[in-house]
Amino acid sequence: MDFKIRAAKQEDCKEISRMIIELAVFEKMQDQVKISTQELERDGFCSSPRFECQVAEVSEEHKSSQGYTVVGFVLYYYTYSTWMGPTVFMEDLYVMPEYRGKGIGKGLMSKVAQVGKEKQCTRLQLAVLDWNTRSLDFYIMKGARNMTASEGWHALRFDGEALDKLAAEAPKDYKSDLDTN
Amino acid sequence: MDFKIRAAKQEDCKEISRMIIELAVFEKMQDQVKISTQELERDGFCSSPRFECQVAEVSEEHKSSQGYTVVGFVLYYYTYSTWMGPTVFMEDLYVMPEYRGKGIGKGLMSKVAQVGKEKQCTRLQLAVLDWNTRSLDFYIMKGARNMTASEGWHALRFDGEALDKLAAEAPKDYKSDLDTN
Repeated sequence: MDFKIRAAKQEDCKEISRMIIELAVFEKMQDQVKISTQELERDGFCSSPRFECQVAEVSEEHKSSQGYTVVGFVLYYYTYSTWMGPTVFMEDLYVMPEYRGKGIGKGLMSKVAQVGKEKQCTRLQLAVLDWNTRSLDFYIMKGARNMTASEGWHALRFDGEALDKLAAEAPKDYKSDLDTN
Repeated sequence: MDFKIRAAKQEDCKEISRMIIELAVFEKMQDQVKISTQELERDGFCSSPRFECQVAEVSEEHKSSQGYTVVGFVLYYYTYSTWMGPTVFMEDLYVMPEYRGKGIGKGLMSKVAQVGKEKQCTRLQLAVLDWNTRSLDFYIMKGARNMTASEGWHALRFDGEALDKLAAEAPKDYKSDLDTN
């Protein structure tokens, strides 16, 4: 089956939003999805986009059982290593179940690697849930190293009240310093 | 001891570079540091900076035993959650050993939380080595959650030949699609 990988356009956000939810359902965390199509449109397609996105598209004759032709996406952004310089982070990679095993996921990921290298990135990083062995195996097979297993890196997060408290504790004179920038 | 937190300037890159190496030595990974002062200057202080940085500074009378007055830094950049929207990632937080226990690390981190919230970030994330219990305890005490321990998130990385291979495998027509963007 032929498919095309192309940069997402603002009008793809409804489809991307649908697939973000499909992925979260698979990850058993759909209650954590708070984002709207409008927010994706605003954050990804403004003068200083917060992310980039590529979609996989099939022809009308191969549309999904629900009638979709956009059947996968990858969402990524640029990060930075103080040891290596520019890096790229793949936040989400998703292919609808009925289109798996056709090289679409691999194609989307290769595209990010290609775009990243064009922007001088020397690393492509991502996070995977440890019970998601199918995905873990896929990435490892493609050459990824598990940095949590090999070096012991753990992911930490401040959010909600913990983040509010932290921000509120910044002494007031920091604020005036910030204003001058 | 008084200290000041302020946005880093291009001329601070030499000091930041010195502290990046001090931190890598502590993390027992100094052989992985490939970045130069010039690269930090280029990547952080251009029209589209790849990161932001804050430094902690003490007065001349409290300079370090080697004569330094810039005694800590935090380097961060903006990331994106497809569930929550804008997020901020703290890549490095460092305070020179002789200045620890004075609230400088906390001040630098609070500053990132404050700046992040002003940019609508709902999460502040970071990665810590599991054997670095002093840092882990510090973050947890301040309210961070360990997402690797609680949800099983593992960090994966493509670099070197694996990244080159991935990028090279992107079918050629992806390239022409990219050229139109």
